[in-house]
Amino acid sequence: MIVGTVVGRLWATRKDVKLNGLTFLVVKPHSYGQDRQEKYFVAADNTGAGIGDTVLVTKGSSARTSISNQQAPIDAVIVGIVDSLDICKETPNE
Amino acid sequence: MIVGTVVGRLWATRKDVKLNGLTFLVVKPHSYGQDRQEKYFVAADNTGAGIGDTVLVTKGSSARTSISNQQAPIDAVIVGIVDSLDICKETPNE
Amino acid sequence: MIVGTVVGRLWATRKDVKLNGLTFLVVKPHSYGQDRQEKYFVAADNTGAGIGDTVLVTKGSSARTSISNQQAPIDAVIVGIVDSLDICKETPNE
Amino acid sequence: MIVGTVVGRLWATRKDVKLNGLTFLVVKPHSYGQDRQEKYFVAADNTGAGIGDTVLVTKGSSARTSISNQQAPIDAVIVGIVDSLDICKETPNE
Amino acid sequence: MIVGTVVGRLWATRKDVKLNGLTFLVVKPHSYGQDRQEKYFVAADNTGAGIGDTVLVTKGSSARTSISNQQAPIDAVIVGIVDSLDICKETPNE
Repeated sequence: MIVGTVVGRLWATRKDVKLNGLTFLVVKPHSYGQDRQEKYFVAADNTGAGIGDTVLVTKGSSARTSISNQQAPIDAVIVGIVDSLDICKETPNE
Repeated sequence: MIVGTVVGRLWATRKDVKLNGLTFLVVKPHSYGQDRQEKYFVAADNTGAGIGDTVLVTKGSSARTSISNQQAPIDAVIVGIVDSLDICKETPNE
Repeated sequence: MIVGTVVGRLWATRKDVKLNGLTFLVVKPHSYGQDRQEKYFVAADNTGAGIGDTVLVTKGSSARTSISNQQAPIDAVIVGIVDSLDICKETPNE
Repeated sequence: MIVGTVVGRLWATRKDVKLNGLTFLVVKPHSYGQDRQEKYFVAADNTGAGIGDTVLVTKGSSARTSISNQQAPIDAVIVGIVDSLDICKETPNE
Repeated sequence: MIVGTVVGRLWATRKDVKLNGLTFLVVKPHSYGQDRQEKYFVAADNTGAGIGDTVLVTKGSSARTSISNQQAPIDAVIVGIVDSLDICKETPNE
């Protein structure tokens, strides 16, 4: 799964009817202090997340198991709002 | 899901018969102001999108749930035409 | 889906028996004029494609829906031979 | 599969109920001496791994087959704790 | 599918029981003469491959269709040992 920050929202009136009722949020993946830009992406929301929230996102076909209509064509879904993320900084490189 | 702009169209006469009737559009993924080139790709269209439209695309095996023949060998489908996309610019880096 | 050019062929005598009878071609993905090298990969062929042909390729588990033995362990398949590909050059950056 | 080191842990109180009872660990992929930074990611744990352990991780929809609730929306799971990893250094480039 | 060279082996005593009996090999993807480093990864072996062998690897959920326990949590499997790989060098860029 990926940790990211909700940075936006998307509206689409004309869409697959199986997507009706879903909220689509734009997620900026965490960089964990690394020197690289991660690609923004859009996820359906299953948690009531809002702008600025740190969220846990599941990608791929597993995303469909999180929403009520498991035939909805989604490939990313917010499955949790992150309370805390503890990273050990002293990990040696290998 | 990915947001992109429809920039082209592909024709293929000789193809898997399960693809008959589908429209194939070339999509350029949004860069969200980031300094990187995203790879173009081809998506089946389920929305009647045209050149220049901003679209929402689902990738992977979930793409198949959006079209009538769910055995069609596709891995990307346009599932919506984007009305608006609001991005919050003040998100701090982490 | 991905557009690419067939640039080679692979032979493997010792292989999973469910792959028997399939042709394996090496595909070089199109760069669409972008300044990046895409990774070559191997796809099963369902169209009779040959060296130099421009092809449409489906990746992931959806590739299996294109061949007769849907339990064959493949993750990429050529699903069409491209007649033409029209790209609109004037798309503004966003 | 990917080999990585467990470098952190994630807590989320508000989450998909199908994730209840799972432990979420942050994994830093091995670089095998290569000059590139791999993206950290979050995996559910099925092995009792802890900070500093070298682990084997399965990604994608196959991750779901490792846990008791195969409808849980996860896309990465720690499936083993690595005892040893022998890499042959003399492999020629091709 | 991906072509690579077997460069190592991984041992894990503590692992998902559905992985018992499988061999895990480290694969270095071919670069086809391109100037980029590909990420090493771990694949289950279904062919009796050894260090130095050139192999064909299937990734994603399709990997599971190659082994006897199709519920084993794997996302990459060696499906063939490559006899030869012919690449046409004269392909023009596009």
